[in-house]
Amino acid sequence: MTAQPRGRRPGSPDTRAAILEAARALFAERGFAGASVRAIASAAGVDPALVHHYFGSKDDLFIAALQIPVDPRELLAGVVARGAEGAAERLLHTFLSVWDDPELRLPLLGVARSVMDPSGARLLRDGFLPVVLLPVGAGLGIERPEVRMPLVASQVIGLILLRYVVAVEPLASMTAEDVVAIYAPTIQRYLTGPLPS
Amino acid sequence: MTAQPRGRRPGSPDTRAAILEAARALFAERGFAGASVRAIASAAGVDPALVHHYFGSKDDLFIAALQIPVDPRELLAGVVARGAEGAAERLLHTFLSVWDDPELRLPLLGVARSVMDPSGARLLRDGFLPVVLLPVGAGLGIERPEVRMPLVASQVIGLILLRYVVAVEPLASMTAEDVVAIYAPTIQRYLTGPLPS
Repeated sequence: MTAQPRGRRPGSPDTRAAILEAARALFAERGFAGASVRAIASAAGVDPALVHHYFGSKDDLFIAALQIPVDPRELLAGVVARGAEGAAERLLHTFLSVWDDPELRLPLLGVARSVMDPSGARLLRDGFLPVVLLPVGAGLGIERPEVRMPLVASQVIGLILLRYVVAVEPLASMTAEDVVAIYAPTIQRYLTGPLPS
Repeated sequence: MTAQPRGRRPGSPDTRAAILEAARALFAERGFAGASVRAIASAAGVDPALVHHYFGSKDDLFIAALQIPVDPRELLAGVVARGAEGAAERLLHTFLSVWDDPELRLPLLGVARSVMDPSGARLLRDGFLPVVLLPVGAGLGIERPEVRMPLVASQVIGLILLRYVVAVEPLASMTAEDVVAIYAPTIQRYLTGPLPS
């Protein structure tokens, strides 16, 4: 997910941390679209080339700034690779496997809670959606992914909220298989079913 | 929704406000189930009978403590009265009419944001769900409302989050009719469709 500095560079960990801190602050303040790599580099006191050296693209920097221990794009690549048929089941299994992992849940909860703040909401809207979710729709080859992926997000986020954040029974204790059986028809309809014109 | 004090009573508005403040504090601290009317009355320095005089039942006090300008039970009574067939469309129209009202949206956003906090999450789980949502399922006469109503909640809350809190397009600007056309089949399936055994 992120380019690790190769070999020993005095001060490198600090530089990397400074860039990440500046990125988090500027993304929160200006949104994903409004925070340029140049502005992030300037806030961290480094050359923009160094940002790309440490973190790759702006999308990569955004994913790193989320500080979650998995790259959702890599996880979802497996969903995309096998096409739109059955994609809902694979998508749900992928989300559940991450959220059901006790080591991953705590940092994910932090990200989930932030979406209620105006800055967190904007990052979901102008960052996570275009960087992570819309490419899934495009990769699946579905029609009108810009309409369908927000529908998918509305159900997945509501499920995550009730199962993991609010922990409502019986959702909180339900097996992943039952959750998938309940929600896959919904998600599949949003991905490939009819839409109002 | 709440019993208004009849006639002039010196100090009454203060007493009512003190009870409401104590209720909000104790519900947040102990959850709905854990905060007794007796404890709320004690915290407000009044007799429990006065709590019932001003607010009716504990359920009524809980709804008053939410400080939203509508009683969701009254709104949902119209959904329940006409039975399970077509209930999803009526439920969605009801929720959207409230959330699309600019005067109601701000206080509702406050309540919605609170569900990410541990105390707000508990109040959704042990207050809003049993006081407001489960009676809707029971009133509709559907099977296993304790399983189905959390499913309904998971989609309605996700929709509210994306349309109103995060304001993701095209959901944020979509007509209520299109939103209902998209989401009613999902909600209706959760209400009356097959469930995993």
